[in-house]
Amino acid sequence: MEMRIVALESLPEIVPGDDLARLIAEAAEREQRRFEDGCVVVVGQKIVSKAEGRIVDLAEVRPSPLAEAFARQHGRDARQIEVVLGQTRRVVKMDRGVLLVETLQGQVCANAGVDASNVPAAAGGSERVTLLPRDADASAQALRERLRLVTGRDCAVIISDTFGRPWRDGLVDVAIGCAGLRPLADYRGRRDRQGRLLRGTVIAVADELASAAGLVMGKTAGRPVVLIYGAPIELGEGSAQEMLRPPERDLFR
Amino acid sequence: MEMRIVALESLPEIVPGDDLARLIAEAAEREQRRFEDGCVVVVGQKIVSKAEGRIVDLAEVRPSPLAEAFARQHGRDARQIEVVLGQTRRVVKMDRGVLLVETLQGQVCANAGVDASNVPAAAGGSERVTLLPRDADASAQALRERLRLVTGRDCAVIISDTFGRPWRDGLVDVAIGCAGLRPLADYRGRRDRQGRLLRGTVIAVADELASAAGLVMGKTAGRPVVLIYGAPIELGEGSAQEMLRPPERDLFR
Repeated sequence: MEMRIVALESLPEIVPGDDLARLIAEAAEREQRRFEDGCVVVVGQKIVSKAEGRIVDLAEVRPSPLAEAFARQHGRDARQIEVVLGQTRRVVKMDRGVLLVETLQGQVCANAGVDASNVPAAAGGSERVTLLPRDADASAQALRERLRLVTGRDCAVIISDTFGRPWRDGLVDVAIGCAGLRPLADYRGRRDRQGRLLRGTVIAVADELASAAGLVMGKTAGRPVVLIYGAPIELGEGSAQEMLRPPERDLFR
Repeated sequence: MEMRIVALESLPEIVPGDDLARLIAEAAEREQRRFEDGCVVVVGQKIVSKAEGRIVDLAEVRPSPLAEAFARQHGRDARQIEVVLGQTRRVVKMDRGVLLVETLQGQVCANAGVDASNVPAAAGGSERVTLLPRDADASAQALRERLRLVTGRDCAVIISDTFGRPWRDGLVDVAIGCAGLRPLADYRGRRDRQGRLLRGTVIAVADELASAAGLVMGKTAGRPVVLIYGAPIELGEGSAQEMLRPPERDLFR
């Protein structure tokens, strides 16, 4: 079994209103990379947010007392904290400078995915940040349909972001949106090589694909779109929401 | 940028004392897969444990009252719980049937990595489980040196296992041991495409490589060795211990 993971190198800087599918298809054509039915297109959250205009100019944000207090205590920008709180439906931890929240869409991550890196400043020079897509599954589905129109191929789409985790240092890429594949591979009920029933083995395939893609995206290289060929995925409808553990089954919320 | 991820298909069942490097090299030769300097060899924990004889026959285990109590309450095998506790230096959560611990080597995972799947029963028919390697970094380093002798190539080696995580359903593969590569890629001090300093961006490259490899390993397919070509890694000395967040910096222990 063999999987190939290819980063596109020639995507332009994305701005609000861009037709991401067309730009991706054009970059692939320039680079002689082919779309195939069943291949996986992994797209970094940042360019999806940019294309969707999910950008906030910090000059226009008025921080609340809560944001001011946390920012003062930890040397953070109160306006950015305010933006984070506006994307939050529950605070998981607000401690030692870490603001870990459950976002409006249910992702548990630092700073609600609000991020200033690789976002050009506003025309007046003030700093801007991106928000996560409002509904990353819908973004993935729309991109998938538009890619099918533009390329004639039926690909799965994953929108990825880079998250921390407890207990382990270093960030990893995960899938915050997906379309056209089952994000979880459920081995329960299957048997191992000794014929023993596998219990509780459900693999987060979409997250592992996002991590594989993250390796070739890099963080400063401007390669936010990755094609994966030969991935052992189950095609079909699927939502990244399936990978969010409900709070009542979670031991750390 | 392109990365290729190839699973070996013809490895035999591993037994204690096996020369894993030789068996891996032979399988690669049968399948006409080449070792290259700088390629990454990802090996599933289970076969490393088997080769090292890290196997416990449950018929020989006498459970403690603590193991008995937890097993009775949650329908688990008290002997297996006893084995788990014997591999534990701290219990992180013992709740709702979940036994999440810090292992003797510092990994935080369910059941201390003790696992019955894909482990043949003992001669007398009793169930056996594997333990994690005693020192997975040392196992990776030994395998790397032996592979260099057998193949003449200097590869990095990762030993992977499949862990759960809070907040997200589905397991992902992580690196519990490594040799010959830097497990963390530290972008701090580098600049993004707008020239802004990146703060706090450290990527767990070894975990992402383990996840990428996990996709092609599968769980029931008998493909526990994966070669990765073209991975953007930094060669050098490195230990998977670097990815373990010290308890004093951890908000969830």
